[in-house]
Amino acid sequence: MHAIGVDIGGTKIAIGVVDEAGRILAQVRRDTDPDDVASIDHAIADACTELAKAYEVGAIGVAAAGFVSSDRTSVQFAPNIAWREYPLARKIAELVDIDVPVVVENDANAAGWAEFRFGAGRGSSDMLMLTIGTGLGGAVVVDRSLVRGRWGAAAEVGHMRVVPGGHYCGCGHEGCWEQYASGSALVRDAKAAVVALPHKAGRLLELAGGERKKIKGPHVTTAAQEGDELAVELLAKLGRWIGEGAASVAALLDPELIVIGGGVAGAGDLLLLPARAGFEAQLSALGHRPMARLELAEQGNEAGVVGAADLARH
Amino acid sequence: MHAIGVDIGGTKIAIGVVDEAGRILAQVRRDTDPDDVASIDHAIADACTELAKAYEVGAIGVAAAGFVSSDRTSVQFAPNIAWREYPLARKIAELVDIDVPVVVENDANAAGWAEFRFGAGRGSSDMLMLTIGTGLGGAVVVDRSLVRGRWGAAAEVGHMRVVPGGHYCGCGHEGCWEQYASGSALVRDAKAAVVALPHKAGRLLELAGGERKKIKGPHVTTAAQEGDELAVELLAKLGRWIGEGAASVAALLDPELIVIGGGVAGAGDLLLLPARAGFEAQLSALGHRPMARLELAEQGNEAGVVGAADLARH
Amino acid sequence: MHAIGVDIGGTKIAIGVVDEAGRILAQVRRDTDPDDVASIDHAIADACTELAKAYEVGAIGVAAAGFVSSDRTSVQFAPNIAWREYPLARKIAELVDIDVPVVVENDANAAGWAEFRFGAGRGSSDMLMLTIGTGLGGAVVVDRSLVRGRWGAAAEVGHMRVVPGGHYCGCGHEGCWEQYASGSALVRDAKAAVVALPHKAGRLLELAGGERKKIKGPHVTTAAQEGDELAVELLAKLGRWIGEGAASVAALLDPELIVIGGGVAGAGDLLLLPARAGFEAQLSALGHRPMARLELAEQGNEAGVVGAADLARH
Amino acid sequence: MHAIGVDIGGTKIAIGVVDEAGRILAQVRRDTDPDDVASIDHAIADACTELAKAYEVGAIGVAAAGFVSSDRTSVQFAPNIAWREYPLARKIAELVDIDVPVVVENDANAAGWAEFRFGAGRGSSDMLMLTIGTGLGGAVVVDRSLVRGRWGAAAEVGHMRVVPGGHYCGCGHEGCWEQYASGSALVRDAKAAVVALPHKAGRLLELAGGERKKIKGPHVTTAAQEGDELAVELLAKLGRWIGEGAASVAALLDPELIVIGGGVAGAGDLLLLPARAGFEAQLSALGHRPMARLELAEQGNEAGVVGAADLARH
Repeated sequence: MHAIGVDIGGTKIAIGVVDEAGRILAQVRRDTDPDDVASIDHAIADACTELAKAYEVGAIGVAAAGFVSSDRTSVQFAPNIAWREYPLARKIAELVDIDVPVVVENDANAAGWAEFRFGAGRGSSDMLMLTIGTGLGGAVVVDRSLVRGRWGAAAEVGHMRVVPGGHYCGCGHEGCWEQYASGSALVRDAKAAVVALPHKAGRLLELAGGERKKIKGPHVTTAAQEGDELAVELLAKLGRWIGEGAASVAALLDPELIVIGGGVAGAGDLLLLPARAGFEAQLSALGHRPMARLELAEQGNEAGVVGAADLARH
Repeated sequence: MHAIGVDIGGTKIAIGVVDEAGRILAQVRRDTDPDDVASIDHAIADACTELAKAYEVGAIGVAAAGFVSSDRTSVQFAPNIAWREYPLARKIAELVDIDVPVVVENDANAAGWAEFRFGAGRGSSDMLMLTIGTGLGGAVVVDRSLVRGRWGAAAEVGHMRVVPGGHYCGCGHEGCWEQYASGSALVRDAKAAVVALPHKAGRLLELAGGERKKIKGPHVTTAAQEGDELAVELLAKLGRWIGEGAASVAALLDPELIVIGGGVAGAGDLLLLPARAGFEAQLSALGHRPMARLELAEQGNEAGVVGAADLARH
Repeated sequence: MHAIGVDIGGTKIAIGVVDEAGRILAQVRRDTDPDDVASIDHAIADACTELAKAYEVGAIGVAAAGFVSSDRTSVQFAPNIAWREYPLARKIAELVDIDVPVVVENDANAAGWAEFRFGAGRGSSDMLMLTIGTGLGGAVVVDRSLVRGRWGAAAEVGHMRVVPGGHYCGCGHEGCWEQYASGSALVRDAKAAVVALPHKAGRLLELAGGERKKIKGPHVTTAAQEGDELAVELLAKLGRWIGEGAASVAALLDPELIVIGGGVAGAGDLLLLPARAGFEAQLSALGHRPMARLELAEQGNEAGVVGAADLARH
Repeated sequence: MHAIGVDIGGTKIAIGVVDEAGRILAQVRRDTDPDDVASIDHAIADACTELAKAYEVGAIGVAAAGFVSSDRTSVQFAPNIAWREYPLARKIAELVDIDVPVVVENDANAAGWAEFRFGAGRGSSDMLMLTIGTGLGGAVVVDRSLVRGRWGAAAEVGHMRVVPGGHYCGCGHEGCWEQYASGSALVRDAKAAVVALPHKAGRLLELAGGERKKIKGPHVTTAAQEGDELAVELLAKLGRWIGEGAASVAALLDPELIVIGGGVAGAGDLLLLPARAGFEAQLSALGHRPMARLELAEQGNEAGVVGAADLARH
């Protein structure tokens, strides 16, 4: 059975038809107006109606950033779009021209599910997905099921506390994992290093055109790939925080596999090897239990569409 | 259907017949010789055979401290008994005189399951159990199922890291939650306070017969119940660490309920209220999501027997 | 002997004649142009020449924010004024119309010295001054002498690390004491609390006109003085960090007295009592040694002028 | 002028005649009975009387572990010998057969002073001595004077807090620097690594005869000198904590030189290079100020005798 997957971002919506092997057969994009929630409903419904003319689809899955109700019908709260206890599934179902179930999923959960079903997680039973972008998102699969939690707010891995009294997070708390294991953390650390260790930051500054404030994550990756000592250290620090935090999750959930995705994962081994070292160094009871693997994600930017579609089928 | 539950401790084995409402209909105890694993098999099998003469039982569940294989047949490693990849379920099945399935479960998981099914967790779907005894154990229930993890090692909550560079744990790592949220932590803090804050420790010392090294957890609870300032602070500190750590788990799992059990839970509100305050103070996205309740456990020392029996039925 | 004290701020210069009892007999103010260092020299010299017509003065002391050479002649580096290895004492001496010694001092050292000689530190031998303003500055007096360090950079108390992996500081490092014990820390914590604990932040928000970003330190103090629970907690947290950090300094220097000054000290007992509690709770070897007192500063905004003048006499 | 230096250890007393160049001209040893303080007085006095027959001496300096009054006459409290507000200088002066001043000094201060006057600190003005033995002791020299503090308890560097919520110290507090930068910390970390990282600990265990509990500091140094990865990491971790903590002290005191002594310093560059790297990585305002040097101590076990004698002359 084909299904439609929808991934609602801050500025764009991607809508695609996905087959049972996780392949996207057709895809369209629409713009988003974050303040006009009705226009989002209509844009999605129109695109679904259109795609359903060319493909027989059995379900629609919608991925959105925010807290999604555990019955998969509503967005309780979204940080970037004006949804507040918004019955998104019903709204779309009312507007769309085909009679199929519509379900809503958290976007990080949808992307993690795509990875579990069709990417690095294929064949595993228990998986932790870490999406290292600007922030740190994730998804948790336990015994082949996605964990949504009692109220749909599970897998907010980025807000586990890893340092009491540590860096403030936008959530108002100190020491959230996201502040140590994200692209924002990498950039913040790079900017700080320019001040704290000026003699080591020459190449980084150069790549940023000489302006400390313009340092971006890719500058760090580029410099590290060239062998720049500071940049290599910055990615290694990021990797260790990923791995060490993952060890705490592994104590709780004993996953088979931890998948590292998101833009920062593009740094490859410069990030992955320190992450593995940090995980091994912090995993409790090493030697008395099998150890989860840490791998890079295989799914790309379309993971949200693929995962949302697949979850709608289940 | 009745089932037999077995709870293997370091020095005693409890074996009971449990009905579907979680009531123990009959119970016997046997001594344990931790170095003679065969004698344990025999003791359990004999008791089961005996109980099965008086009660019709459909399954046997065995709770043991250690890593239990996720297929519920073997103990991979145990800290206190000489099991190493030991096929405990098969051994008992071969010796027992009735033909029913035998399953093995981790003891903390069994106790947590009893709480979920028949105690404070009745009616909930997603629950975190924290057992605050000498150490910090736990159990995780997601969507009404016990989480065992890929290799049966899940719910080792005590070994999540809460302080980088923090107190060493017997597991060889620094900063494990168990070192901040356990009876051992309470006693260690109390002994330290006698040195660091001698002018405040008079009552605690008195209760311990004047010897700092003889301070035990119940001395702290007694002094706190009398209103002793230091003891109240020590329990409040313990409670805050429980609640703050639980907030990290809640970010990951979004439970409906967090149950605090174990001997230290006997301190009641002196522990529970600070735990709730710590949880609320650290839970991310408060105000945008429902908040889990923190409650004291209702099941007592027999929770392992009850939970093992019930898990064997599922 | 009278002396002239000069306090160079980012926008204003204060110049006063100070007698041996620390009283200001006359004072004038001049504007500062931070980018035109020559104009600063001239403004100071002119004011000194003018004051010296009415008062016989024996020395000129100049207080400036920045690293001052240990021979008290030059500013090596200043964060806000364009001095780089600048021979400030010589420049002024060349321009001023009287032939008296000119010495340069760090501004926080000058203010701390005024407190030591004429304020809360009178009669003590070993004192730590903590100036809690936007940042955390300080001064150290050991055996009745100001500690300048080998290169004049001593007493940068705000950059002692108190939390590994803690909040970033403008200096490029994580966990500096200044990030926990300063007015900026208080405001940052207050803003964060509005997000993390919205149900407790009503009064604070109201005082800030309903805008989280407009919360300032005085709003916290005002709310705390009214009894607002969150505001009281925020000041208590700040106070504890002051006291706990001071305990580390006391382990190193064994002062008789720790003086808390700066704008935040205006919160009085709401800050001082938690600071004392934090200090007592963290001071090593309590009970085997006398304990330093923590007191509020007595000198006001003119402390820089008074201290610079007095140091020039020594 | 020659002076006699006395160094009172837990089991032995060393007494020597020291010339103005810090050379020991003659030395004797006596046993200590820590519970019989009068016998210590007599043993010291007898040895002094004897040495004074062969050498003309002008002063006696006595170094003792404990809090020494700032007027250098009494031991206020000692951890290992039964002194409580004990007038040690007067007791010895009354018993000794020559009429010279007797002064008491803290033993770490005496050793640090020897280093300052005759060792690595020769010619410097501001020095921090770190003695890394079982614990972490130290001495502080500011502007060529030893810092004793208001009540003689200064330079307890080991009890500065470097990790809130960190390892407990014998002093009853958490996170003291001594718990991260001492031989005890090294051994504790090594033992923990055997549990946490068994696959890397083979050589360490072998050197300790296969028994984890028998691991000592020299095993780590030996293994590290052979190139063992874990041992090198353990010394590097210790070194980084030394350097990072020293950066906090440098923020406060701006020393010219930081000297690393004590038994652990025998590891040489394996410790010193990571210490320098940690110091550089954490020193605030690098690039805007000169940076203190970190060097190994040059004085050996007799530093206490030499320093006590020299301090008695001042």
